[in-house]
Amino acid sequence: MAKRRILLFTGNGKGKSTAAFGMLARTLGHGMRARVIQFVKSDDSVGEQKFFSRFSEVDWDQYGRGFLPIDPQSPEMEAHRAAAREGLDAAIAALSSENYDFVLLDELCYALGQNLIAIEPILNALNAADDGKIVVLTGRNAPDELLAVADTVTEMQLVKHGWEQGITAQTGVEN
Amino acid sequence: MAKRRILLFTGNGKGKSTAAFGMLARTLGHGMRARVIQFVKSDDSVGEQKFFSRFSEVDWDQYGRGFLPIDPQSPEMEAHRAAAREGLDAAIAALSSENYDFVLLDELCYALGQNLIAIEPILNALNAADDGKIVVLTGRNAPDELLAVADTVTEMQLVKHGWEQGITAQTGVEN
Repeated sequence: MAKRRILLFTGNGKGKSTAAFGMLARTLGHGMRARVIQFVKSDDSVGEQKFFSRFSEVDWDQYGRGFLPIDPQSPEMEAHRAAAREGLDAAIAALSSENYDFVLLDELCYALGQNLIAIEPILNALNAADDGKIVVLTGRNAPDELLAVADTVTEMQLVKHGWEQGITAQTGVEN
Repeated sequence: MAKRRILLFTGNGKGKSTAAFGMLARTLGHGMRARVIQFVKSDDSVGEQKFFSRFSEVDWDQYGRGFLPIDPQSPEMEAHRAAAREGLDAAIAALSSENYDFVLLDELCYALGQNLIAIEPILNALNAADDGKIVVLTGRNAPDELLAVADTVTEMQLVKHGWEQGITAQTGVEN
């Protein structure tokens, strides 16, 4: 059987989540079944979700309340943390489930960096995941523990971004 | 109308083409029509092609004879160049066509770096592309002219790759 793979896309440039979505397409091309768990993100009108939600082989859920930082003392923070904890439970379940060949934990690094969830349960679940499972983790500022557990890591470095040229977020490009 | 966008994914890490495929999925989610032109690549059994070829909104062609370098004096080189020239013609046609909202020129930088095609015709076609068109270019060692014409550039830096740990190419991950 194929080895368990853990791929990590981090850095401050564009392409982390989109690379993960490309890998999702690749695995679907091989008839695999996929679980997508999005931390932090809460906009379900984006193109990737509209597209991949069409496929019965994909179970896609968002466990976020939007990007941070908001004031950590704000009462809203508890809703962010509660959503991320639900995502964590879903992630642990997916990593040990025989129903999925591919598991994407989108914006996991961001959720960890904002202390929405603890890292130990995820590390344990990653280390316990079976051979044959393909796992993709994304988000900026990946912690060292995730760099260590991944077999393949790419840092997406921002060289140039449209918003620096006054280009606003655009359908099909940024969402 | 939305601006013309040109995005470039370069660098030596994993995720350049896969990010482009993720963007393709995103645009399909918004009902856009897409043209995929692959330079250099010649393997049509990969997951991404199997997957996206299912959709009538996607026209996908490979114009390659495999990765280089082979001996530049080898008689095979002319077949590589001829294939890339066909890809160049297809790219120019796609960039000026009203039939496509999204145009992916996969491994363009690699084809340019190996001198399979000249850069001027592509630059002219990119500069002439209409507002509303989303163009994605990929490949390592992007030339300065492409960095200049793109509005968004990410360098995918290799931090760690599975093959360093003795992991061989795996279905759903590398192909």
